[in-house]
Amino acid sequence: MSIYMRRVTELSVKGARVVLQGAIAKAEAMGIPQCVAVVDRGGNLLVFERMDGAKLHSQFTAIQKAYTAVSARVATGQLPFELAVGIALASGDRFATIAGGLPIMLDGEIIGAIGVGSGTDEEDIEVAEAGIAALKAVIDN
Amino acid sequence: MSIYMRRVTELSVKGARVVLQGAIAKAEAMGIPQCVAVVDRGGNLLVFERMDGAKLHSQFTAIQKAYTAVSARVATGQLPFELAVGIALASGDRFATIAGGLPIMLDGEIIGAIGVGSGTDEEDIEVAEAGIAALKAVIDN
Amino acid sequence: MSIYMRRVTELSVKGARVVLQGAIAKAEAMGIPQCVAVVDRGGNLLVFERMDGAKLHSQFTAIQKAYTAVSARVATGQLPFELAVGIALASGDRFATIAGGLPIMLDGEIIGAIGVGSGTDEEDIEVAEAGIAALKAVIDN
Amino acid sequence: MSIYMRRVTELSVKGARVVLQGAIAKAEAMGIPQCVAVVDRGGNLLVFERMDGAKLHSQFTAIQKAYTAVSARVATGQLPFELAVGIALASGDRFATIAGGLPIMLDGEIIGAIGVGSGTDEEDIEVAEAGIAALKAVIDN
Repeated sequence: MSIYMRRVTELSVKGARVVLQGAIAKAEAMGIPQCVAVVDRGGNLLVFERMDGAKLHSQFTAIQKAYTAVSARVATGQLPFELAVGIALASGDRFATIAGGLPIMLDGEIIGAIGVGSGTDEEDIEVAEAGIAALKAVIDN
Repeated sequence: MSIYMRRVTELSVKGARVVLQGAIAKAEAMGIPQCVAVVDRGGNLLVFERMDGAKLHSQFTAIQKAYTAVSARVATGQLPFELAVGIALASGDRFATIAGGLPIMLDGEIIGAIGVGSGTDEEDIEVAEAGIAALKAVIDN
Repeated sequence: MSIYMRRVTELSVKGARVVLQGAIAKAEAMGIPQCVAVVDRGGNLLVFERMDGAKLHSQFTAIQKAYTAVSARVATGQLPFELAVGIALASGDRFATIAGGLPIMLDGEIIGAIGVGSGTDEEDIEVAEAGIAALKAVIDN
Repeated sequence: MSIYMRRVTELSVKGARVVLQGAIAKAEAMGIPQCVAVVDRGGNLLVFERMDGAKLHSQFTAIQKAYTAVSARVATGQLPFELAVGIALASGDRFATIAGGLPIMLDGEIIGAIGVGSGTDEEDIEVAEAGIAALKAVIDN
């Protein structure tokens, strides 16, 4: 492989479905209707689901959280407010300042991300973590 | 009814007119020109009125407040500033951070929302409440 | 039920999943990677999937086609070009002028819509029809 | 490798530099100031250069052409006008209808794209082709 390109690993739509289903199952168990989005390493949407009763505007925030997590390669909602808003404004609203987005890592490499919205910060994160755990479970098997 | 769809109740345009007229009557009694918007449960505009003398930008905020109230299913302007701004940015400006939007509930189900803008927070809320009260009055009869 | 509201039927997320899966199965059988979006009767996104290899920009067009089909209550891409573009511009790009969006009707009432993008017009429509057929099949059983 | 992810090849920034330099060298030889953009397979910008004298708006069209070429996996500007405009409108202006964007393929797989703007269609395409040829030359060695 030349230096002019690189081999990278990317979440497939089948992998994204596993993440989504793991997240939805968790949200159902918690009794919290959620919006869940999964993006690939380029930030492009792979799968999305809005549970009955989830907030309407969360259809947009879930996707933006997933995009931000894959973009920044860390959980969303961690930066000081003024800096985070500054990045959001300077990027044409391509940066979520709020919690609920988590990168999906594999062997130290980023392969995609999940974004969850409609609950509290803690609920969103718990659901996102469950989605990632579901993927790890099927990969480890 | 199968699990693949659900029966829901939605404000009709006749119901929306009642909400609007109740709100406008209250604003006139208060001597405060207002913009009033009523949306259905999907966040789509049903009726709108801008009273003579109401602020121009409030034609937009009233609609956004109504959308936000139906989306979040609670009164607008209640969240901490940083979280509210974060949601607004992450949803592509589909979330009003300010007061004046109220969900319209019926038997615990959301059927629409009203948004009012051009007065103070207190005035906007009072007018919105009057709109909802007008609907309750005709329904109870 | 009073005249102030109306009882309507809306696709649930479970119903949307059936539509999505029917569409994806068809696209897989055709060997055409597609983006598929399903919205509820208010035009809000319920489920989405982008198959591996589908065009990136179709993640946006599929959603817009579904929105347009539920909004106009007819298949997208049927209007004369100049009129369709005019509506798209006048609605702030909330109207798809191209084929691939179909309304989902039940007993003459609109309950949601599907939008498909990444293939030719004919392929997109065929996949959308398969999604709707999958829903009809489970409802009739 | 599991079905849940896939190994893909992506242009590195070193590869993108080769494409850019090949394109710029060609534009200089032609005496035509150009804007040149190179994106990775996710449609995200890797390198960009606006030569002295190139048109200002071409800083935007070059990037959009590159995005479109990697998204659609074919050269831009090939579709019938009405369809291309329809896709542009339905994707929120994420689709260039004009020529000057070319996908960069390697062994049948898309690894990125180049977009060139500020000349005529023919000049833009010639410069884009020169960029890709420069990459092929260093890879084949």
